[in-house]
Amino acid sequence: MAETQTKFPEVQGGGSLIVAWQVKGKRVLVVGGGEVAAGRILNCLNADALVTVVGPASGLNPEVAHRVAQKQVAHIDRKFEPSDLDGADMVLVAVDDPQASTAIWKLCKERRIPANIADVPPECDFYFGSVHRDGPLQIMVSTNGKGPRLASTIRKFIARQLPGDAGRAIETVGQLRVKLRQLAPRSEDGPRRMAWMTQVSDAYTFDEMCGLTEEDMHNLLRYYPSGRVPSLDVLKAMRGNADVVRLDVFDGSFGFSVGA
Amino acid sequence: MAETQTKFPEVQGGGSLIVAWQVKGKRVLVVGGGEVAAGRILNCLNADALVTVVGPASGLNPEVAHRVAQKQVAHIDRKFEPSDLDGADMVLVAVDDPQASTAIWKLCKERRIPANIADVPPECDFYFGSVHRDGPLQIMVSTNGKGPRLASTIRKFIARQLPGDAGRAIETVGQLRVKLRQLAPRSEDGPRRMAWMTQVSDAYTFDEMCGLTEEDMHNLLRYYPSGRVPSLDVLKAMRGNADVVRLDVFDGSFGFSVGA
Repeated sequence: MAETQTKFPEVQGGGSLIVAWQVKGKRVLVVGGGEVAAGRILNCLNADALVTVVGPASGLNPEVAHRVAQKQVAHIDRKFEPSDLDGADMVLVAVDDPQASTAIWKLCKERRIPANIADVPPECDFYFGSVHRDGPLQIMVSTNGKGPRLASTIRKFIARQLPGDAGRAIETVGQLRVKLRQLAPRSEDGPRRMAWMTQVSDAYTFDEMCGLTEEDMHNLLRYYPSGRVPSLDVLKAMRGNADVVRLDVFDGSFGFSVGA
Repeated sequence: MAETQTKFPEVQGGGSLIVAWQVKGKRVLVVGGGEVAAGRILNCLNADALVTVVGPASGLNPEVAHRVAQKQVAHIDRKFEPSDLDGADMVLVAVDDPQASTAIWKLCKERRIPANIADVPPECDFYFGSVHRDGPLQIMVSTNGKGPRLASTIRKFIARQLPGDAGRAIETVGQLRVKLRQLAPRSEDGPRRMAWMTQVSDAYTFDEMCGLTEEDMHNLLRYYPSGRVPSLDVLKAMRGNADVVRLDVFDGSFGFSVGA
């Protein structure tokens, strides 16, 4: 048991609990219509939230006005009133009025509605970071308040490093998961499916994964019954020539023979 | 105005709202003490939460037992009871008991407590992703459920690309921000401070930023009164030789003369 004393990760305090909040079909109230509000609104729409913006039309910035005109968000054309909180699942405040902001924060806390008051860290259940988005892939960079602009620099740095087809690769793996569930649909197959998907995810580097094709996924699935995962070279050799692979079931080993 | 119709980012639905939840000093209840719970607990401790684990001692995995023994978390040595929710700010459930899980989820929703029931997406206010941590820097990768294991692969890929001293660089910029606030403490200096910090963050690539020293930060601060930011070459030339830079205030231009 001595080993267990040291092998666990050390606690490294001072961070945040970074989570992917599910706002699909949830009501998010955005108070304010300036540049910060515009960014918040886009974040929420990208997560399929039902967004309502409250604030005088005269104060909407062009992007927010555009979202209103396109009916991407509902708009209440006046200043905030407490009844606006009725039915709200989340509240994001971005107005240049500290007193009004604090009043809204207190109302949210009374009603236990998660809220973020822009630029007032103590009045935030959560902070935003800089998010890279590519299809199903989201990468969020937080500097925990040390350098918000730097978070954006790091996000761009990461985006440049990622293979260009990273999002598509994840879609492909997602499809593999769906097809596998069709192939082995019973709930008692669950652990075996998960174990095999883990093997697949661990068998290739991320770069390699991004190079895999639909055909590769099709060929990969043929290995599921054996519980094995072929190497990248094997997968590549199968391209356009799917019949060359043979699973040697006699001794449990894994035979690969071209032209056999 | 025609330009404004097209220049705004397109909405790309299907994502999550990724946020840095603030749980410092907040009460997080973790129901269950297995491997999944162990991961959740570490996430929460890294964010300075007050964690209570509820579950029979006999069912704790070695890592959770270690956290309990080290008094990093409180422990209630029995099965969950509804009164455990009293005072909880967040609830994370990771037990192999779908019925019990659903019952806890419903209680949390009645009480408006944010909750995550592991492996039951419809019973989650939020999902977890794979997080890279380096001091103040946190990078969270989510595949929005398409490939949880792949998220971990991508996190490792990103970690390899980042400069080794990324976390330290962010600390340094954080210190610059603090020192700047000492130099220009008035709240009416706020916009000017923010504008200058933005200039600093935009003046160097992330790689360059990671190479900056304490001395560079000290020298950088001397440019704040001028509202300018020196190039990396200028900063490097100042090292060990801080007197060589002269700010030409007469014509508002920015003079740099070695040995002047």
